[in-house]
Amino acid sequence: MNDHEMPEPVITADPPGVIIETVTPQIDCGRHPVKRVVGDTFDVSAIVYKEGHDTLAARLLVRAPDSSQWTQHRMSYDVNFDRCETSFVLDRIGRWSYTVEAWPDYFATWRSELRKKLAAGLDVSSELLEGALLLRDASVRAAEADRLKLDVVADLLADESIYPAQRASVALDGELERAMSRSEPAAIVRYHRALSVYVDRERARFGAWYEMFPRSQGAAPGEHGTFKTAELQLPRLAALGFDVVYLPPIHPIGSTHRKGPNNRLAAKPGDPGSPWAIGSEHGGHTAVEPRLGTLRDFEHFVETARGLGLEVALDYALQCSPDHPWVAEHPEWFHIRPDGSIKYAENPPKKYEDIYPLNYWSENRQALWQASKEVFDFWIERGVRIFRVDNPHTKPFAFWEWIITALQDEHPDVIFLSEAFTRPARMKALAKLGFTQSYTYFTWRNTVLELRGYMIELTQTEAAEYFRPNLFTNTPDILNEFLQTGGRPAFRIRLLLAATLSPSYGIYSGFELCENVPREPGSEEYLDSEKYEIKNRDWDAPDNINADIRSINRIRRENRALQSLTNLSFHYSENDQILFYRKSAPGNELLIVVNMDPHQQQESTIHVPIAELGIGSDQTYEVEDLLTGERYTWRGSPNYVRLSPVERVGHILRLVELETGDRE
Amino acid sequence: MNDHEMPEPVITADPPGVIIETVTPQIDCGRHPVKRVVGDTFDVSAIVYKEGHDTLAARLLVRAPDSSQWTQHRMSYDVNFDRCETSFVLDRIGRWSYTVEAWPDYFATWRSELRKKLAAGLDVSSELLEGALLLRDASVRAAEADRLKLDVVADLLADESIYPAQRASVALDGELERAMSRSEPAAIVRYHRALSVYVDRERARFGAWYEMFPRSQGAAPGEHGTFKTAELQLPRLAALGFDVVYLPPIHPIGSTHRKGPNNRLAAKPGDPGSPWAIGSEHGGHTAVEPRLGTLRDFEHFVETARGLGLEVALDYALQCSPDHPWVAEHPEWFHIRPDGSIKYAENPPKKYEDIYPLNYWSENRQALWQASKEVFDFWIERGVRIFRVDNPHTKPFAFWEWIITALQDEHPDVIFLSEAFTRPARMKALAKLGFTQSYTYFTWRNTVLELRGYMIELTQTEAAEYFRPNLFTNTPDILNEFLQTGGRPAFRIRLLLAATLSPSYGIYSGFELCENVPREPGSEEYLDSEKYEIKNRDWDAPDNINADIRSINRIRRENRALQSLTNLSFHYSENDQILFYRKSAPGNELLIVVNMDPHQQQESTIHVPIAELGIGSDQTYEVEDLLTGERYTWRGSPNYVRLSPVERVGHILRLVELETGDRE
Repeated sequence: MNDHEMPEPVITADPPGVIIETVTPQIDCGRHPVKRVVGDTFDVSAIVYKEGHDTLAARLLVRAPDSSQWTQHRMSYDVNFDRCETSFVLDRIGRWSYTVEAWPDYFATWRSELRKKLAAGLDVSSELLEGALLLRDASVRAAEADRLKLDVVADLLADESIYPAQRASVALDGELERAMSRSEPAAIVRYHRALSVYVDRERARFGAWYEMFPRSQGAAPGEHGTFKTAELQLPRLAALGFDVVYLPPIHPIGSTHRKGPNNRLAAKPGDPGSPWAIGSEHGGHTAVEPRLGTLRDFEHFVETARGLGLEVALDYALQCSPDHPWVAEHPEWFHIRPDGSIKYAENPPKKYEDIYPLNYWSENRQALWQASKEVFDFWIERGVRIFRVDNPHTKPFAFWEWIITALQDEHPDVIFLSEAFTRPARMKALAKLGFTQSYTYFTWRNTVLELRGYMIELTQTEAAEYFRPNLFTNTPDILNEFLQTGGRPAFRIRLLLAATLSPSYGIYSGFELCENVPREPGSEEYLDSEKYEIKNRDWDAPDNINADIRSINRIRRENRALQSLTNLSFHYSENDQILFYRKSAPGNELLIVVNMDPHQQQESTIHVPIAELGIGSDQTYEVEDLLTGERYTWRGSPNYVRLSPVERVGHILRLVELETGDRE
Repeated sequence: MNDHEMPEPVITADPPGVIIETVTPQIDCGRHPVKRVVGDTFDVSAIVYKEGHDTLAARLLVRAPDSSQWTQHRMSYDVNFDRCETSFVLDRIGRWSYTVEAWPDYFATWRSELRKKLAAGLDVSSELLEGALLLRDASVRAAEADRLKLDVVADLLADESIYPAQRASVALDGELERAMSRSEPAAIVRYHRALSVYVDRERARFGAWYEMFPRSQGAAPGEHGTFKTAELQLPRLAALGFDVVYLPPIHPIGSTHRKGPNNRLAAKPGDPGSPWAIGSEHGGHTAVEPRLGTLRDFEHFVETARGLGLEVALDYALQCSPDHPWVAEHPEWFHIRPDGSIKYAENPPKKYEDIYPLNYWSENRQALWQASKEVFDFWIERGVRIFRVDNPHTKPFAFWEWIITALQDEHPDVIFLSEAFTRPARMKALAKLGFTQSYTYFTWRNTVLELRGYMIELTQTEAAEYFRPNLFTNTPDILNEFLQTGGRPAFRIRLLLAATLSPSYGIYSGFELCENVPREPGSEEYLDSEKYEIKNRDWDAPDNINADIRSINRIRRENRALQSLTNLSFHYSENDQILFYRKSAPGNELLIVVNMDPHQQQESTIHVPIAELGIGSDQTYEVEDLLTGERYTWRGSPNYVRLSPVERVGHILRLVELETGDRE
C-alpha cells in the first residue's frame, strides 16, 4: 500500500510567512459549494496571521460565473481576532469562485513605528532611510501615475540635508499612504484553494408548491383528465397563491403487472396504473401518456401556467415498467438474474413487479448515465426548469454530482428537488452534491420539541449553507397520523407551520379539502390512493381551507421575513403546546404563534424577544395579525395569547413600526 | 491568474460508490496531527454511506511510527447514523498515521434478503444461484484454506437437484459467513487522505513544573550560584513533588548594554545581566555562562535531577546579545539598518539595546535555521528532552513546523513548551504546528466566570485535540494583580486551581514564599526582579505554602483523574465566589470546590452531578477531602460547603466507593 500524498502546504519556508486559515463559508474543506440566491449579499471571512508585529492586509478574490477574470475586494482586518472580512452582492446565477490573499503591509508597520518614535522624541534618521527604501521598492510595481511621486518622496526622505522632522511629516502624508496602498505588494500569500458558491434564482429558496395529478382533472367525474382539462385548474392554483405546480410522471404507463386500486396486484381493464411505472409501447421518459394528450398539449400547459405566474415542475423518476423501450433496447442497463431475466424491484418480502430498477453501475453505465441526462435535456428544451427527483438515494451519489453539475453548467436556472426520505447523512450528501432543495422529515415532527429541534438543525447549523428544506405537508405517500386524527384544525396548523417555518413549502392535492382517511389503521397511505386511480374532487367542498391558503400565500409574498431560511429563531412560550417563533428581515419583524394542539384551546404567556427588537421592558408596541387584520397593543416581554382550534390556530403578528420621539 | 486545482475526488464514477466522510478526530481538514500520549486508547469514527440498501463494512488502517506496515482494525457500523467506529491502544511514541477503508458487503446483503424471502415462503432458487456467484467471486481472493470450502458450497448452492430449503440452510451457515468475511472484498474505497496523531510520552500531558534561576542558588547570601550549588536545591524540589525543573537560559550573558537591577539601562560592575541577553566572548547558545560552571557541571546537574525523579527543561530563546559569536560570524542573520549597523530589539518607543533579534527571513536563512536546529541537537545530546521556547510567535510559523518535525523524527520524546502570550489564533497555530504544550492566559482569569469559560474552551472544544495548556501561576514576567493584593490565600487558591484544572502546571521560584511586591503599582513586573539580579531566599520563611505544594503534588500523583485534560466538567454552585468542578477517571471521581475570594469566608450550596455519578437523589455517600483526610457524609445533589481563606481555600473531595447491595 502506498502512502497518501501530503496536503498542499498552507505555509512555506519562503517570505512573507503569512498564513490564511478558516476561510468561511466553506463545506467539507471546500469540497462542496455553499448555496445562495441571486441578490444575496455574500459575507466571507478568514483568519490571517503572521509572526511578529507587522500590519497585515487581505483581499477577497471573486470570479463570477462564465468569467475568467478575478475581481478584488479589500477586506477589513480585526487584529484582536486575526480576522478579516468583506462582503459583496451575488448579482447573477451560476457557480462563483472565491479565495483570499493576504500580505504584510510593511509601509503601514513602518508608519506606525515612525509615529511612536516621533511622539517619544527619538532620532528617526535611520527610519527615514528605511522608508525611502520601501517607497523605491513599491515604485517598481506602481502605476505610472504614482511612480514619479513615490520616487520623489523617496529621494526627499533620504535627503539628509533636510531636517528629519520635515521629512517625517512628508512620510506621514495621507496622499502618500493612498499611493502606496495602490501599488501591488511585493509578496502575496494565496489561500490554498478556491471555494465556490452556487447562486440560484430566487425560486430555489422561496416558493409555494402544489402537487397535482393531471389525470384526475377530468372534464367530468370519472373521466381521465388531460393536459387540456388540467389547464383549467391553473387559474384556481394561481388564485390560491401557488408558485409551482408539480406533476407526478406524465409518461406512458406500462401495462405488464400494472397495479390496481389500493396497490392491488391485479389491475382491471381501464385501471390507469401508477404513473411511476414508466414506459409502454408509446415510449419512455421522453414521451407523454397518450391519455393525457400530446407533447404539444403539455407545452401549452406549461405556457398557460407561465402566463398565470405559475411554473411547472416535472417528476424525474429513474425506473422503468417492463414495457419501457429501454428494456428491449438496453437490457444490460438493468439488473440481470442468473437465468438471464431482468430483476423487478423488491423490498423483501414485498415485490414490485410493475417496476424494473436501472443498474447505474452496469458495465454499460456510460450510455445509461448519458441517456439519463438526455431525459433532462429533453424536458429542459420544452421549457421545464424544475424537477422533483424521485428516490435519488437509490442511484449513485457520483451520478448526481455529475449530472447536476453538467446540467447547471448549461442551464444555471434549473432547480432540482431531492425526494430522499432516508438517513440524515445521505439526505445531506445529496444536497451537498448539487440538489437545490430537499424533502424533509417535517411531516413526522408534530410537537413543539420535535419541530423546534429539527428546524434549528435545518436553519441554524452548517446544513443551512447547502440544504434547503421544502416542507411538504403531505404527499401521495405520506398522510401522517397527525392529519388522520386532528381533523380540519390539524390541516390548518400544518399549513401555517410549513408556510412560515421555511420559505419553500408544498401541499399535495386534497390537503385543502382535509382528506385524511388512511388505507388502514397504522398506515400512512391514503385510502383509494390517487397513485393507482383517478380521483375527482369538489374544490369548494365544505370545510375546505382555501381561505387559509390564499391568505397565507399572500402574506408570504408581502413579507420579506418569510422569504429567507436562516432568519428563524424560537422563543419561550410557557405552555409547551404553543410554538412561538420570530422571522426577521430588515423592516419586517414577524412573531408567529401556533397552537400545536388540534383538539383543544390553549393559552400561554409568550416571551417576546424585546431586547433584540429594540423594545424597552416597559414600552408598549403594536402588533398586527396579518391573518385577520386585528391589532393588539402589547407591553414588554411577557404577553398573553389564547388560540382555539376552531377559531384560529395561530397568529402571524407583524411588529408595527415603533414610534420614535415625542409627538406634540 | 491561474485557477486553483480542484480537490482530490472523494467520489468517483466507478463502483462500488461508497463514500467516506468526516473521519474523526481531524484538525483543519487533516492538515495537522491530533495529540495523544502513549497508552491512550484512540477512538476513530467515520461517516460511511452508499446509495441503495447494501450492507456496508469498514476498517481502520493504522501505521505505527517507523513502520511501513498498515494494520487493520474492523470497525463497527451503526446504520442509523451511517457511522462506523473503532479504537486501539497507542502503544508507542511518535507519529502514527490512520485512515479508513469501506466497501459494500454484498454477501451480507444477500444473506439478509435470503432470510426475509425464506421467512415469507418465497421461491429462492434464483437467489441461490446468485449466492453461488458471490462465493465463486470471493473464492478467487480467498486464502487457500477457505478457497476449497467456498467452491464446494458454491457448487452446492447451484445444484438444482437439491431442494432449495436445504441449499439455503447451507448458505446461512455461520462458518460460511466467517470464511466470506475473511476474503478480501472485490472493490474497496479508501478515504482520500491519511491523518496523523502524534503520540508523546506521558510527561507531555502530566507534570508539575518549577522554574528556578540557578545563579540565585548560591552557597552563601550574595554569592553567584553555580550548577553545583543549584544541585543542592534538587532534593527540596523532589520532596515538594515536582516533575520538571525549568532553568532560564544558562548561556554566557553579553556585557554590551547589559541591564542593571530593575531593568535599568546601565549595569554596574558585577551586575549579572539578563540571562535572555545570550552570548559573550565565552560563546553563544551552545555554551554555558562561566559563572555557573562548566558544561560538565551542567551534565552532572541533569544526572542528579534524573536520580531524584526530576527532569531538567532548558530555555530556548532565539536572540542574541551584541557580543554573541553569531553577530561577528553571521551579521547577515540579523536585521541590518540602512547604515549597515545591526538593529537592536525595540517596541517603540522602548529600546532593548542589549538584544539583537535574528532575522529568520534573511537571505541566508537556510544556514540560520540549520544553526538553530543544531542548538537543539547540542542540548538533546547532553540529555535534555524538554525545552521551554521563548516568544515563538516572533519567529516564522514555517520555521517551527520544520524544526519540531525534524527533531521529533529523530527524538520522538522531546517536549516543546510554547511561551507565546499572544492572540488566540497564533497561540493555537503554534500548538497545531507542533508545540507539545503551551503557556496560557490562566494568570489573567481570576473569577468563576472567566476561569470556567476559559477552561471549557481549553478542555471541551476542538482545541483540546492539539493544545495542551500548562497553567503557570506566575513567571518572572507575570506577577498578576490577584497575587499582589490577595496575600497568602491568593497563592493557595491559584496553586489549587492550576494543579487541579490541568494535568500540567507550574510555579516560578518565590511563589511558595508568596512573593508579591510589584516594581510599581499597575505593573506585573516583580520589584527587584530576578531577571536582572541574584535573589537569595529562605525557603522555610514564615507563611510559606510548601505544605500545600507537597500535598497537592502527592494528590496529583495518586489520582488518575488529575492526570488528564479533557475529563473536566463544571457544576452549579449557588455562590458565584465558589468554583465547583469535577475531574473524572474510571474508579477515581474527584469533586473540587474552590473559594475564589482570598479575602473572605464564602459558603455555598453546590449541586453534585449525582446522576452522572450513579448516585440516587436520596442516597447518602461519603466524600474524603484528600487535602485533610476528613470525611463527610453527603446526601443527594445539593450539599453545603464553607471555605475560609485562613483555614482552607478549597476541597479536593474523592468520592469513596459507593456500597452496593445490602449488608446483613
